[in-house]
Amino acid sequence: MSDAIGRVSLADVQANPDGRQVPIAKVGVQNIRFPIMVKDRRRAAQHTVATIDMSVDLPHHFKGTHMSRFMEILNSHDGVISGEALPGIMRTMRERLDAETAQLRVSFPYFMEKRAPVSGSAGLLSYDCAFEASSGAGDDFVLTVRVPVTTLCPCSREISSRGAHNQRGLVTVKARFTGELWIEDVVALVDDSASCGLYPVLKRADEKWVTERAYDNPRFVEDLVREVTLRLRAMERVTWFKVHVVNYESIHEHDAYAEVEETKGVRNGETRGSRRASPS
Amino acid sequence: MSDAIGRVSLADVQANPDGRQVPIAKVGVQNIRFPIMVKDRRRAAQHTVATIDMSVDLPHHFKGTHMSRFMEILNSHDGVISGEALPGIMRTMRERLDAETAQLRVSFPYFMEKRAPVSGSAGLLSYDCAFEASSGAGDDFVLTVRVPVTTLCPCSREISSRGAHNQRGLVTVKARFTGELWIEDVVALVDDSASCGLYPVLKRADEKWVTERAYDNPRFVEDLVREVTLRLRAMERVTWFKVHVVNYESIHEHDAYAEVEETKGVRNGETRGSRRASPS
Amino acid sequence: MSDAIGRVSLADVQANPDGRQVPIAKVGVQNIRFPIMVKDRRRAAQHTVATIDMSVDLPHHFKGTHMSRFMEILNSHDGVISGEALPGIMRTMRERLDAETAQLRVSFPYFMEKRAPVSGSAGLLSYDCAFEASSGAGDDFVLTVRVPVTTLCPCSREISSRGAHNQRGLVTVKARFTGELWIEDVVALVDDSASCGLYPVLKRADEKWVTERAYDNPRFVEDLVREVTLRLRAMERVTWFKVHVVNYESIHEHDAYAEVEETKGVRNGETRGSRRASPS
Amino acid sequence: MSDAIGRVSLADVQANPDGRQVPIAKVGVQNIRFPIMVKDRRRAAQHTVATIDMSVDLPHHFKGTHMSRFMEILNSHDGVISGEALPGIMRTMRERLDAETAQLRVSFPYFMEKRAPVSGSAGLLSYDCAFEASSGAGDDFVLTVRVPVTTLCPCSREISSRGAHNQRGLVTVKARFTGELWIEDVVALVDDSASCGLYPVLKRADEKWVTERAYDNPRFVEDLVREVTLRLRAMERVTWFKVHVVNYESIHEHDAYAEVEETKGVRNGETRGSRRASPS
Repeated sequence: MSDAIGRVSLADVQANPDGRQVPIAKVGVQNIRFPIMVKDRRRAAQHTVATIDMSVDLPHHFKGTHMSRFMEILNSHDGVISGEALPGIMRTMRERLDAETAQLRVSFPYFMEKRAPVSGSAGLLSYDCAFEASSGAGDDFVLTVRVPVTTLCPCSREISSRGAHNQRGLVTVKARFTGELWIEDVVALVDDSASCGLYPVLKRADEKWVTERAYDNPRFVEDLVREVTLRLRAMERVTWFKVHVVNYESIHEHDAYAEVEETKGVRNGETRGSRRASPS
Repeated sequence: MSDAIGRVSLADVQANPDGRQVPIAKVGVQNIRFPIMVKDRRRAAQHTVATIDMSVDLPHHFKGTHMSRFMEILNSHDGVISGEALPGIMRTMRERLDAETAQLRVSFPYFMEKRAPVSGSAGLLSYDCAFEASSGAGDDFVLTVRVPVTTLCPCSREISSRGAHNQRGLVTVKARFTGELWIEDVVALVDDSASCGLYPVLKRADEKWVTERAYDNPRFVEDLVREVTLRLRAMERVTWFKVHVVNYESIHEHDAYAEVEETKGVRNGETRGSRRASPS
Repeated sequence: MSDAIGRVSLADVQANPDGRQVPIAKVGVQNIRFPIMVKDRRRAAQHTVATIDMSVDLPHHFKGTHMSRFMEILNSHDGVISGEALPGIMRTMRERLDAETAQLRVSFPYFMEKRAPVSGSAGLLSYDCAFEASSGAGDDFVLTVRVPVTTLCPCSREISSRGAHNQRGLVTVKARFTGELWIEDVVALVDDSASCGLYPVLKRADEKWVTERAYDNPRFVEDLVREVTLRLRAMERVTWFKVHVVNYESIHEHDAYAEVEETKGVRNGETRGSRRASPS
Repeated sequence: MSDAIGRVSLADVQANPDGRQVPIAKVGVQNIRFPIMVKDRRRAAQHTVATIDMSVDLPHHFKGTHMSRFMEILNSHDGVISGEALPGIMRTMRERLDAETAQLRVSFPYFMEKRAPVSGSAGLLSYDCAFEASSGAGDDFVLTVRVPVTTLCPCSREISSRGAHNQRGLVTVKARFTGELWIEDVVALVDDSASCGLYPVLKRADEKWVTERAYDNPRFVEDLVREVTLRLRAMERVTWFKVHVVNYESIHEHDAYAEVEETKGVRNGETRGSRRASPS
């Protein structure tokens, strides 16, 4: 037995009873870096590096959970993280940790090849993404995709005799859905909503193109959050979403932001209590 | 009129009508650094530096909000941020931005003098705190206090013939309350719950004291979240709280954490829908 | 005696001899947050919050330094950090820690009122600054001022039929000097060098002004580092400087940067060994 | 030609002459995330994700460098980053950018399997590493390896009747060397120098072992920087090194640190001017 040295058995302090009457909603490990493979529409799978948080609930009558088991589960797994693999990992967490509920968060940069609009010059662009899954009282899965874009100010363009201030913006989309939702689809709908998408490699003809495209498609932070909202509303398989847009204003030191959250069939501001636990 | 140059009037693009039928829950500015004064139990008030986020809602039929007004409100204010001052700031935000709801988040380090337990050597210790207020459909106020502490592992102590691993932990308490809740009170209850509190200056006699106190009060991350929970349950004026504890494990590269959230009279895991909008 | 409890004297482990023959260049404490006052050209002094690092050298024959003394020096000091106060603090560090050399780094946001160019609307803007001082084999002092600005791309403007991409840039100036150098002067010379300076409050007439000014003053990251260099070369009291410019490109996910370092009378790329130890 | 649209040739603004007489030491791109493969002693190569900075010098008579070429070089490369591949990348940078000197910094988490000391339970641990190469007036290569460890305070142990405070520490080793230096070797020498190494998975018998090992091997931050120094001095192929140790003190909110830098044959504090440009 691995917990005994020679003949001496070591006390299992965590398994002691606890009389304080405080159930713990989440207890676990966080900030674990781990190499993973995620499904990639173009190349079957891609290698990347994740930061992982794992937790379970702990009933009030146990003193502690067995933290090393989270690491054993992670390390016994082959590193393939996908929609198909998650339910199995969650089930193992609940079984090994003897828990009712389990939560898993996997954050990672996802790489996509992107071609410049005129020259076709190709390069990789990275997007911060996350899978958040919970299992127990009900299963839940939220996909997060973060897309950097260009935003150009409609007011600045309208009132100025030349030019318009523009800047890097960052759009964070969180979504619940039925069936399958590709990261590539979320990136595409955000790029379409912005003044212009970003590119890894831009030659001069491309730079002219993106400059003029942004000038022709001015977007307030309010416009961008609304354009993304319209496109997510139109995707039938998306059942809930939250869109957060930040503009790293080129004329200010501070940032501008806007946020919309909608459950399908329920208008913003009237959000009903969801039956599913939110992992975010 | 400040928006006209000479005789030319500049278009107010933000005031244009919008037909996309997307109300925006929050639109505003964030990451504004600003010098503030906060109430201090010992010295009436202390100077510190805040990071501020301000937002309002935007009805679906307006194209944009007037971002510069947030900055005008902040800069016209004298920098005193307190429980008494917040309602006035929120009201001004709603009036000037013509909004139904307003949200304000003020994050800042708060300094407290702390004396070493044996030598009495005094020094300042800083705690990350935040005020989150929202106003509109209902008023809400959440205080956040983050307290670094020492945690010593009960299992390590029990099974080892000498020593016990210990580390810096970080306890985040969020609370809603009636009446007044001092940051000093939250720090004190967390220090009491931990293996030992932290000190800015420790002479050798103090170092002996904190080492032995931690050894005599071992705490799992689960114990600490529970001890803080018991003390918050016992404070009548606290109506809701959330406690998050992280241990920067000295024997691992990853962190351990635990979390409890309770509305008074409602047990953890049965959280009922709150009538108040949550600003966090 | 504070290091004895009752009659028992506690061993001074740090004062033990060490035979490993390894002198330590820097040993100390870092990431101390502390409220300070710094000189302000307009209001005599301003309150802000610093992050402080303090270190000394340790000869090879001592086992350890006495870390608590750094904190005692800091806490016994009244929090006024200025060019006049630093030599005294450094001297105390060397005396109390029994060291040949001492290093001090004080980083803080510095607030300046800035008025919008047309409407005159006033507000505070913050600049990350630092004092780095060292004392011992020779005294040294380096001022760091970080100035966010607008940069507009000359190539994008030249090749596009309308608009030009622009973004927030960040200019870091480090300087050694004789006499006095105000943070306000460094901010002003950087603002003059950029496509446009940033402002806390901009009304519509101001937004038109900054948009057109940036369009009329296009700057590559290379142009900006050179314009700042020319202005620092022209300031006689500046004896050494380093300029680092980052552009948070609005058309890319990555950043562009450029760097120049010059000792007066010595051209870039021929940097001679400085007689003064560099604290950076 | 990719820079012409139809018949219209686009101006090459960067290639314009510049009369400001300011040569630029470094101009380039930074914060590029990119999937790479690095050599792995155990498995030939491992997949990971890097953050990359690339720069060249720019003579005073050119207005700008051609930033897109950095991205083209990176994206045309197959992602294998190794000691053998770097000289070729640097040469391409200098040729394509028409530059005298080139600098490349590649930062990445490196994963190693580590087995628990008693149970043998295996898991992955990550180490932040970096390659910094420069080429031109002389070639240079610096390896950085960051190793988290346990440190236990000798003073606390000596003066306390039970226990001793300990914490996570972080050791950063930078080294220049001849021949080959494995990341694995640097991790091993740092683990040997510390109170105890860290492990991804620890069962109870292991936790007893690491607790007692740390207690039996107390180390001040000064001890640790010296122990690492002694081991690097003894490695003949290492020609220069810099060791930085931080202790995230479990009894304080601030950190303790120590630093040693040595060129072989030259004692600390007498550092001679290196003939090689330093990329760090």
